[in-house]
Amino acid sequence: MPHEEKNTRVLLDSRPPSFPSPANFRIVTDAVPKVGRDEVLLKTLWLSIEPYMILGMKGSAPHSAKTGSDRMANLANGYLGGVEVGTTMYGPTVSRVVQSNNRKFAVGDVVSSYSGWQEYAVDDCTTLRKLEMGTVPVTAALGVLGIPGMTAYAGMKLIARPSAGETVVVSAALGPVGSVVGQMARIAGARAVGIASGAEKCRYLENSLGFDAAVDRLSTNFAQQLAAACPRGIDVYFENAGGAVWWAAFPLLNEFARVPVCGLVAKYSGTHLDTGTDRTMEVLERLLLFRIKAQGLFVFDHADLEPQFLQEMLTWVSQGKIKYREDIVDGLSNAPQALVAVLTGKNVGKLLVRVAA
Amino acid sequence: MPHEEKNTRVLLDSRPPSFPSPANFRIVTDAVPKVGRDEVLLKTLWLSIEPYMILGMKGSAPHSAKTGSDRMANLANGYLGGVEVGTTMYGPTVSRVVQSNNRKFAVGDVVSSYSGWQEYAVDDCTTLRKLEMGTVPVTAALGVLGIPGMTAYAGMKLIARPSAGETVVVSAALGPVGSVVGQMARIAGARAVGIASGAEKCRYLENSLGFDAAVDRLSTNFAQQLAAACPRGIDVYFENAGGAVWWAAFPLLNEFARVPVCGLVAKYSGTHLDTGTDRTMEVLERLLLFRIKAQGLFVFDHADLEPQFLQEMLTWVSQGKIKYREDIVDGLSNAPQALVAVLTGKNVGKLLVRVAA
Repeated sequence: MPHEEKNTRVLLDSRPPSFPSPANFRIVTDAVPKVGRDEVLLKTLWLSIEPYMILGMKGSAPHSAKTGSDRMANLANGYLGGVEVGTTMYGPTVSRVVQSNNRKFAVGDVVSSYSGWQEYAVDDCTTLRKLEMGTVPVTAALGVLGIPGMTAYAGMKLIARPSAGETVVVSAALGPVGSVVGQMARIAGARAVGIASGAEKCRYLENSLGFDAAVDRLSTNFAQQLAAACPRGIDVYFENAGGAVWWAAFPLLNEFARVPVCGLVAKYSGTHLDTGTDRTMEVLERLLLFRIKAQGLFVFDHADLEPQFLQEMLTWVSQGKIKYREDIVDGLSNAPQALVAVLTGKNVGKLLVRVAA
Repeated sequence: MPHEEKNTRVLLDSRPPSFPSPANFRIVTDAVPKVGRDEVLLKTLWLSIEPYMILGMKGSAPHSAKTGSDRMANLANGYLGGVEVGTTMYGPTVSRVVQSNNRKFAVGDVVSSYSGWQEYAVDDCTTLRKLEMGTVPVTAALGVLGIPGMTAYAGMKLIARPSAGETVVVSAALGPVGSVVGQMARIAGARAVGIASGAEKCRYLENSLGFDAAVDRLSTNFAQQLAAACPRGIDVYFENAGGAVWWAAFPLLNEFARVPVCGLVAKYSGTHLDTGTDRTMEVLERLLLFRIKAQGLFVFDHADLEPQFLQEMLTWVSQGKIKYREDIVDGLSNAPQALVAVLTGKNVGKLLVRVAA
């Protein structure tokens, strides 16, 4: 019985100066919390480890989400609100209902939740979604059928809108967002070019995920390789990286290119240093002369899209048109190291921590 | 009779190294050209002097316009094609038909044309539009009812789309684009804040054009003044300037702000130097975190909008809802100095050269 169990939690112990380390976390074990009216007790099965979590470790973002859905608004506030030092580290989870005071959820239901880095969590059910995955494993709800997949979907449907024959380049292409972006580009009949770190990841993109080309950002002649992989320039640059990757893609942008700005891992992780003379006016001039659109993308702004996303993506995944790969780390206590690994690009698939599955 | 007249033309004599001077031009007088089949002979009444002309002096742009209209495509190619050294300087004109082999145009018709800096021009009629201005003077066809006005209109209707209560900031606010942007913001119920150079221009924006506030970019505390003029931040930043003006507006951009990038006079004119450390990643991060859209704007991409623009703008101008001011320079030979004046922001109204009116 959960009430007799202890609850192990990973707390944020200190804010990272720039790049985080496991020493920024502390593990505690205390009592499983009591379940109130309309609440459920969740047992965490899987944690998702995602690069944006560095932002939450550093503090809250100075803004909030505009969204038409309470569930999405609450989720967004989870992402944007940051993590207070001394509290449980945040993050999306797949959990099982082990006790329920809410008639919408029954004991045994497996749900998409936002319990953070702990074994048990009481949830007020405002952000819970019961998983209905058909034959697809529930872990996909943290990847292609979760926030990362929906991020890719929203960016492609609302900003990028590639046409057949166009070239779509995505950075961090083997990440859970990037891999969906590239596969959606292929579904749209576009040329999909992925940027990833290392030859192994590039082979995987080309051989297993069907990208037309993949370019290793660690190569010494990375920019030339990217240009060679894009003989007709770039019509969509889906930005997850920033830094040197941005500067390689930027001069290849075609007229009327669309640039969803989805992530800047290079900046978050502190591996990118802003050096050299300011090039902002050069960027604005290219936007002007080439009539390029660059737009920040935050999935929680697009709650309206969720039903369409879940339906279409589940179909694609079930049909094998969208593939995914998972890297699994065992044990809650290994979550801090897993986050460091994600930020340094060490994982190949979507990184999950198996807590109790 | 025109055939007995001589044709005075202003040629581009050399490309400017950075900032242009009258010495880059040369005046010649030769025969009025012969009119071929389906062509007309135009007598130039008015020349428009516009900042983008520095681009044409420097050479052709590396791209072409996507447009559904032949007339617009030809016009766009005029803008983008650049000017060959030794040929007539390009530019929009208002002209009178003085000889016609085309049954669509009669002698005496006043037309919007693209004759460039010369007294007479033979025109194949592919870009001509007969002016039907009601009670509005024909010179407005080079300003609020011409390419500058349509640029503002397209940017506001397609990218900026301000709502009532939002704050719209426009740089080069007294220019023929910026002044329409601010007045359209007011029509939409938004707060209009203009940036201009000098106290006189600012007073004119506030007192005559109905801007809610105007900020002098030459003030020592310009950035603080802009912030004070935008107590609820900036929802639309209509960029005509670049450089220091961009950097003052950038930190004020709200979530979901729209940034039509329409011009970068500071960059074209060489008055802006890119100094300091590269801030491109900082810009991309704000786009991301604040879900801002920045998009290059080129009026000729939006030919479809022309009938709607002409109808709505003519109504606004006739009703006095959109006002404009013109600065007139007399004589074709003064066009080079006039262009230098536009690039240094010396004019207050739309700068026109009266050639034969």
